[in-house]
Amino acid sequence: MTTPSPLAPERFPDLPPIAGVRLASAACGIRYQDRTDLMVAVLEPGTTVAGVLTRSLTHGAPVAWCRSALKHGKARALVVNSGNSNTFTGKAGRAVVMATARTTAKLLKCALNEVYISSTGVIGEPPPADKILAGLPGAVAAASAEGWSDAARAIMTTDTFPKGATRSAKIDGVPVTINGFCKGSGMIAPDMATMLGYIFTDAAIPAPALQTLLRECNAVSFNSITVDGDTSTSDTVLLCATGKAPHKKVTRAGDPRLKGFREALRSLMIDLAQQIVRDGEGAEKFIAIEVKGAASSDAARRVGLAIGNSPLVKTALAAADANWGRIVMAVGKAGEKADRDKLKIWVGGTKIAEKGGPVPGYDETPVAAHMKGREIAITVDLGVGKASATVWTCDLTHRYIDINGSYRS
Amino acid sequence: MTTPSPLAPERFPDLPPIAGVRLASAACGIRYQDRTDLMVAVLEPGTTVAGVLTRSLTHGAPVAWCRSALKHGKARALVVNSGNSNTFTGKAGRAVVMATARTTAKLLKCALNEVYISSTGVIGEPPPADKILAGLPGAVAAASAEGWSDAARAIMTTDTFPKGATRSAKIDGVPVTINGFCKGSGMIAPDMATMLGYIFTDAAIPAPALQTLLRECNAVSFNSITVDGDTSTSDTVLLCATGKAPHKKVTRAGDPRLKGFREALRSLMIDLAQQIVRDGEGAEKFIAIEVKGAASSDAARRVGLAIGNSPLVKTALAAADANWGRIVMAVGKAGEKADRDKLKIWVGGTKIAEKGGPVPGYDETPVAAHMKGREIAITVDLGVGKASATVWTCDLTHRYIDINGSYRS
Repeated sequence: MTTPSPLAPERFPDLPPIAGVRLASAACGIRYQDRTDLMVAVLEPGTTVAGVLTRSLTHGAPVAWCRSALKHGKARALVVNSGNSNTFTGKAGRAVVMATARTTAKLLKCALNEVYISSTGVIGEPPPADKILAGLPGAVAAASAEGWSDAARAIMTTDTFPKGATRSAKIDGVPVTINGFCKGSGMIAPDMATMLGYIFTDAAIPAPALQTLLRECNAVSFNSITVDGDTSTSDTVLLCATGKAPHKKVTRAGDPRLKGFREALRSLMIDLAQQIVRDGEGAEKFIAIEVKGAASSDAARRVGLAIGNSPLVKTALAAADANWGRIVMAVGKAGEKADRDKLKIWVGGTKIAEKGGPVPGYDETPVAAHMKGREIAITVDLGVGKASATVWTCDLTHRYIDINGSYRS
Repeated sequence: MTTPSPLAPERFPDLPPIAGVRLASAACGIRYQDRTDLMVAVLEPGTTVAGVLTRSLTHGAPVAWCRSALKHGKARALVVNSGNSNTFTGKAGRAVVMATARTTAKLLKCALNEVYISSTGVIGEPPPADKILAGLPGAVAAASAEGWSDAARAIMTTDTFPKGATRSAKIDGVPVTINGFCKGSGMIAPDMATMLGYIFTDAAIPAPALQTLLRECNAVSFNSITVDGDTSTSDTVLLCATGKAPHKKVTRAGDPRLKGFREALRSLMIDLAQQIVRDGEGAEKFIAIEVKGAASSDAARRVGLAIGNSPLVKTALAAADANWGRIVMAVGKAGEKADRDKLKIWVGGTKIAEKGGPVPGYDETPVAAHMKGREIAITVDLGVGKASATVWTCDLTHRYIDINGSYRS
């Protein structure tokens, strides 16, 4: 196991059981030695599901499978393997997905389209179906309400720490829990969807309303992070609601009784998304980029991502250099409405630039001190509107190059 | 002076004199010690000019000045300084441009809008006007027909070698010459325009036709390269035609008599653009990415750039790893029409992938050998149309991070 990122949280949080969810993990030897690489979540009948998937045109077979299954909105199992992404694997890859669904459906006595499948790892190598299928019966039998941390570990690839979060909320006065875990470290770009993330709740929310909530919270969480601007072929986030909490029925995402749940879901997804950035390949610094004064929140997000994706900004951040000229450059290339002479830039709360130039008498001392820390705050006011968005990213360091020069070998 | 890039040409080519063009360079101490940092090109009356400029919304004061001057289509001087980009410098920056134009116009007894100005270097620091103005009279007085190599050196920033090219062609049987030089190493992305490049010819071509030729050749040269996907605030390419060659008048860019000239111009611009990639910050390998079978040449170029801008592809190339799965990923995220099952990929002439998976029995040996070289050829057939484009880039190495972590210090 590699050394955890310097930005890792102190420990994996305590995730309480969620009625209707049991988890298991297994070591199938798909690619890695001496670690787990298969995760199975067993869900009780009646569980609804929502999902967001990569818009990549070269997505893998499991993504196509999930997109089709999501039309039905019901889930009985999630099966996730690491070590092989089952992407660009042609007919062989589709056969592996089908065999996995079939074996799982038989074990749980459920429909094929109630089994959701994700795969993450190397692209273009047929996954070893026999190893995955051999691991399934034992995993399903061993599934327990306690397996959260192990499940989060089983789906890791280049991740240096497992990522989880939990929140609670009330619906109509009845307490509900939301747990989630995810993986992701490189090939992280938010223009389309996200990395692998699995969220579970005991709330009773029908699939269409669940889908609306997920999409909405995804925009400000997983779709607001970037590590390297590269979009995965396997990005998948699934939200499963077992309906075991005894609150009255809620049908619409806009129902005011969902206010607390929505806030908790958003907070949990932002927490998970930030953990991905904190484990960005080679990351040494965690960067929050707030863009305000934009024409729309989408425009604000795109400007934030242009800054967060710029290799010149990211290498300057790695070197603790408050080279704000590169932020100006990134705003200029984003293609969104901007006005050179209305732009304002702050780093660590210190205003650096306004009115088309540096702030008169700008003293770099407090900014230089801020830049030396692990957490960097950049604020940009475009001065052309009232919308805002926040984007999170990490710096670009030598370790990113080391990790990605040796991934296959 | 830093060690030249391992991809540098053996030497700066011999650029012959061009009637009507005289060049000078001077050391003004703008930022660098012990080197030249001011380049002046003096052009005889009657010179027409065309230009392409960055579309960045945070462009510098010199870019705004050139855009306005280009409406008149006539040039008597180019003044270019390195060490300071005069970008995001507010009123002070505009005053420097105006003072530079005024001093030059006075020395040459020409109109203000016949003086073209470019600045390259750090963003957000007011340029030292006095140093530039003090250098101008001596430079104008010393301008000679021989100063090509020195001129190319004076405009360098992080470049490790000066970049120049020459071509000859015939218009209506009369020989004409085209010389050009350029600078650029980082902040190189082609979506908008280019880096600094200056091209001169003795051909007699009116400004509108010159503009058409420049735009057309720019698309397949400077706009087809990328180093880091970051677009400069100062990108400028100017093409000046002194009209000293005694050929008959040509008015339209579509005139068949310009066939040879157009080909020579395209070839020269591709040569210069490739030299920028060969001097890409930290570059160890020169990568040509040919995309064919696309719906349009623009689509092919965008797919090529998605591959060429992917940090995951570029780090794999740096490590000589034929990780073609990342090429699949980049095609998928490009947002252009593509079909996973029609996609074909070659590296160094060896077909690696087709029909949605690896080529059966694919032997990595010749590909691995090719990947170890300095020049890498990637070909992608999208299988959805008949258009193609070629894009050039370099790998992403540790030196890129070193260079960009220390640029300001």
